[in-house]
Amino acid sequence: MMPTLTAFKDSPDKGAGLARDMRVRWALEEVGQPYDVRLVTSQQMKNPAHLARQPFGQIPAYEDGDVAMFESGAIVLHIAEHHPVLLPRDSVQRARALSWLFAALSTVEPPILERETVRFFETDKPWQAERFDMVDARIRARLDQLAAALGDADWFAGAFSAADIVMVHAIRRLDGAGILEGYPRLGAYIARAETQPAYQRAFAAQYQVFQDAHLS
Amino acid sequence: MMPTLTAFKDSPDKGAGLARDMRVRWALEEVGQPYDVRLVTSQQMKNPAHLARQPFGQIPAYEDGDVAMFESGAIVLHIAEHHPVLLPRDSVQRARALSWLFAALSTVEPPILERETVRFFETDKPWQAERFDMVDARIRARLDQLAAALGDADWFAGAFSAADIVMVHAIRRLDGAGILEGYPRLGAYIARAETQPAYQRAFAAQYQVFQDAHLS
Repeated sequence: MMPTLTAFKDSPDKGAGLARDMRVRWALEEVGQPYDVRLVTSQQMKNPAHLARQPFGQIPAYEDGDVAMFESGAIVLHIAEHHPVLLPRDSVQRARALSWLFAALSTVEPPILERETVRFFETDKPWQAERFDMVDARIRARLDQLAAALGDADWFAGAFSAADIVMVHAIRRLDGAGILEGYPRLGAYIARAETQPAYQRAFAAQYQVFQDAHLS
Repeated sequence: MMPTLTAFKDSPDKGAGLARDMRVRWALEEVGQPYDVRLVTSQQMKNPAHLARQPFGQIPAYEDGDVAMFESGAIVLHIAEHHPVLLPRDSVQRARALSWLFAALSTVEPPILERETVRFFETDKPWQAERFDMVDARIRARLDQLAAALGDADWFAGAFSAADIVMVHAIRRLDGAGILEGYPRLGAYIARAETQPAYQRAFAAQYQVFQDAHLS
């Protein structure tokens, strides 16, 4: 019995791979685990059946036998716990990967998501330009620290790990913002991730969903 | 050899227990693990020695022998992994607790922290009142969902778990905002957590640091 991933039927990102099911697809591809997909519309995401799986009416959700999960970070960690290729068994390396996994979610991603709030929900506000400046300064402060921490390394915690899946995916949301261009090390880091075969398979799978939604 | 927790020497919250070392103290108290504390000033947090422990110049950091960690969520999870009292061993219950732990950090906490940005960094902006309204609406949407998900239960994932430590601590930051008063179930949840002896020991320990800083 394969696990089931719940994802957008018609993602607002139009197949750009920015929705958080991409993280779970990527993790599953890295460990070679086939999966089923349940697609939900934005209307269905408000229904009791979906809220029972995802109390905030978001995606992704994940079911594997009796295990039922939500939150992309939790699901990626759950998958990684059973596969040393995503989370080292050695306690020192594991602690480092966990630190970076949570840093991606709690410290790096929030200002990047706040930028989306400014972009989509403050278009009619006289303050939008000034808010962009303020949020972009917060993002740059984090990217400065990230670039310093990464240094000349390929990945954040030794070998590639679950932390890189979430970090790369969070940073990719800056595509088109004109910010990442100032960070060649981080740009190379994203490019390195995007050449991973598992990333490419996951990206193609979510892109197919977008295409199917618009051909039907 | 005891683990060492790095925390604020003089927390800006004046001993209210809102800084994130509180989460780690609480987890350590729940599992009965004594610990040493390294206190850092805001100036010291910019020094290379601190940045080597915490790449974003924040607190907490955590060292236990060769294990070195940062990010409160990661540290709490690390402690919980070795203690079923904070993270169930049963795979179904564990997956549920992990989902709620990440929900607290990735979905509940960000709008609450954004409210602090409005409060402290937008005081001179003509838009501050309107931004408070917008952010408070985001917070209330999450609290509505949280209250529905908690229902009549005492804790978010069956028995008390690491998820409740982070959830309670994130929500407590709303003290004084006039929002939580509309959520009696969540108010009772916070009150229930605050009566736990481990919470009280952790709170007292961080309060002592504040007192020491102001008596010296």
